[in-house]
Amino acid sequence: MSRYWSPFVHNLVPYVPGEQPKMPDLVKLNTNENPYGPSPRVNEAIAGQLGDGLRLYPDPSSDALKGTIARYHGVRSNHVFVGNGSDEVLAHIFQGLFGHGKPLLFPDVTYSFYPVYCGLYGIEPKPVPLDDDFRIHPDMFQGECSGIIFPNPNAPTGRLLPLSDIETILKAHPDVVVVVDEAYVDFGGETAIGLVDQYSNLLVTQTLSKSRSLAGLRVGFAVGHPDLIEALERIKNSFNSYPIDRLALAGAIAAYEDEEHFQSTRKAVMAERSRVTEGLEALGFRVLPSSANFVFTEHPDHEGADIAGHLREHGIIVRHFNKPRIGNFLRITIGNPEQNGRLLATLGDILKRFDREYR
Amino acid sequence: MSRYWSPFVHNLVPYVPGEQPKMPDLVKLNTNENPYGPSPRVNEAIAGQLGDGLRLYPDPSSDALKGTIARYHGVRSNHVFVGNGSDEVLAHIFQGLFGHGKPLLFPDVTYSFYPVYCGLYGIEPKPVPLDDDFRIHPDMFQGECSGIIFPNPNAPTGRLLPLSDIETILKAHPDVVVVVDEAYVDFGGETAIGLVDQYSNLLVTQTLSKSRSLAGLRVGFAVGHPDLIEALERIKNSFNSYPIDRLALAGAIAAYEDEEHFQSTRKAVMAERSRVTEGLEALGFRVLPSSANFVFTEHPDHEGADIAGHLREHGIIVRHFNKPRIGNFLRITIGNPEQNGRLLATLGDILKRFDREYR
Repeated sequence: MSRYWSPFVHNLVPYVPGEQPKMPDLVKLNTNENPYGPSPRVNEAIAGQLGDGLRLYPDPSSDALKGTIARYHGVRSNHVFVGNGSDEVLAHIFQGLFGHGKPLLFPDVTYSFYPVYCGLYGIEPKPVPLDDDFRIHPDMFQGECSGIIFPNPNAPTGRLLPLSDIETILKAHPDVVVVVDEAYVDFGGETAIGLVDQYSNLLVTQTLSKSRSLAGLRVGFAVGHPDLIEALERIKNSFNSYPIDRLALAGAIAAYEDEEHFQSTRKAVMAERSRVTEGLEALGFRVLPSSANFVFTEHPDHEGADIAGHLREHGIIVRHFNKPRIGNFLRITIGNPEQNGRLLATLGDILKRFDREYR
Repeated sequence: MSRYWSPFVHNLVPYVPGEQPKMPDLVKLNTNENPYGPSPRVNEAIAGQLGDGLRLYPDPSSDALKGTIARYHGVRSNHVFVGNGSDEVLAHIFQGLFGHGKPLLFPDVTYSFYPVYCGLYGIEPKPVPLDDDFRIHPDMFQGECSGIIFPNPNAPTGRLLPLSDIETILKAHPDVVVVVDEAYVDFGGETAIGLVDQYSNLLVTQTLSKSRSLAGLRVGFAVGHPDLIEALERIKNSFNSYPIDRLALAGAIAAYEDEEHFQSTRKAVMAERSRVTEGLEALGFRVLPSSANFVFTEHPDHEGADIAGHLREHGIIVRHFNKPRIGNFLRITIGNPEQNGRLLATLGDILKRFDREYR
């Protein structure tokens, strides 16, 4: 607390990211990082940028990266906005497109950064309940609002909404912007980017942190009607002229030039997700159907927090949210085969011990 | 214009950075980049980060970088805030510390991003006139305000305010935050960081883009009382958990580990600044005394825009601001000896041609 703070700062409740511990031999399954590294071309492209060139500012409009993303997704460059991770892109969206003095609608179980942005920009958050199976229904978004946002697949549930349902939402709310946050879409979903030409109120966000394995590089983007993109450009140019550095620009472009690496690693993650899901179910866990690089799971007989605590003692970190409705669940990132094997074996041991103790 | 925009977006007047043209053989003296590259250690440190590690998020709190900056400047880590370039740091400062419903005071001739931030966060800008020689006087900041900000040395004038005058300002305004924006301080100024222990209303910002030659990497920071830093952390953690990527963190830390490179390059810039100043004066230019890596100069007989246009025809780009009081001035970045030589020779040719034409 300080008298120097702008008044709203006193009430800010910041987002808490999953921890980034610096322990050796850790099985880190808590922040949905990709278990496979980025394309070798990314590293080559970045290495090619080193040297005296770092003395120069990057391209403030990131034209080359926008062009790459536009070509990849079959849109024009003026449909694309890029930022320092999709979190920055989302922040600009909240400030620039959701500030209409009405509540913002989003699922009650979802990415917990959304209500934080609301606090930062004075937007009223209005969480809307998912059904008992944690599904989004298109007709659950009702009433006057300044916009709608949800991840697809949703996080932390992993559940996917079909494009037909997204179209139903877009048609029912033509007066507000509907943001589909596709951070995890490459692990089994279908992108809504193909709909931006039809719906001028649709904005799709993606990140290179997950399926492109570049969490360390901080690049995200939005695709939508040029009018929506212009609002984001105005904010970006009033906030930070150069949000993406030279190395991140080069690395991000190179990631799109290695389709084979992208396809093989995302498929490997999906195959491992099936194996982890089966393994968890064999141990008695309930696993929500996931289209992401994580699973959301609970055990009928044991507390999620308790299991997470025991996993940690064995050097395995997963994410537990101490929140209504999902307090018993764990969000577990899909790791590589060795990590997943260790996870399942350790969970088996923990459950056996629980059984002995509680007998 | 779009009905989807938050209302304030319609009135935003974004900042316009100096252009980053992609022409070969250009003498680029328009955005105050360092003519000398960064320390070779920066490139080594970044190369060491390449590989599979990019799949992992960076440290969200940038502890290692904060520690490096704190040690270098003799403060504690909780006095340090870091961001994606000092522009992002400044944005958070405006939002978190200047939102008190009163005008923000800054010089009428200064960094033109300040009024832009005001537009982004609904702060009333109140420019205060510099004197006829473009000097800041401590007593020019008068009346109720929500804060005071100025660069030192000032941009685009290059003029330095002594620390004693900064203390006068801090003492006269104990109820508001005074931000000293030291983007250029390493080229001849003395940092006010040594005063943060005495003045809890002082916040000092710096960037690695100029004297550390890392404009391409996007790292800046603020130093001040932990209460001020906490406001910035709250905003950062409500905006973007991971604003600085793994490569920028490694490169920035390495830059502070090569004091010799830092000292030799900044001194080389200062020596060239003397040479450029003398050369300009020999051609009849008036040059304001500069403590930055640029000079601010006008010719008594010829229009600044006219000279800038002719320089551009010769492949030399400088910055001209079409603004009140300084419309006749040019801001010229100090380049390397070859670039500066070409600048002076070309200016000589242009003036000769002017003389022939106007005779």
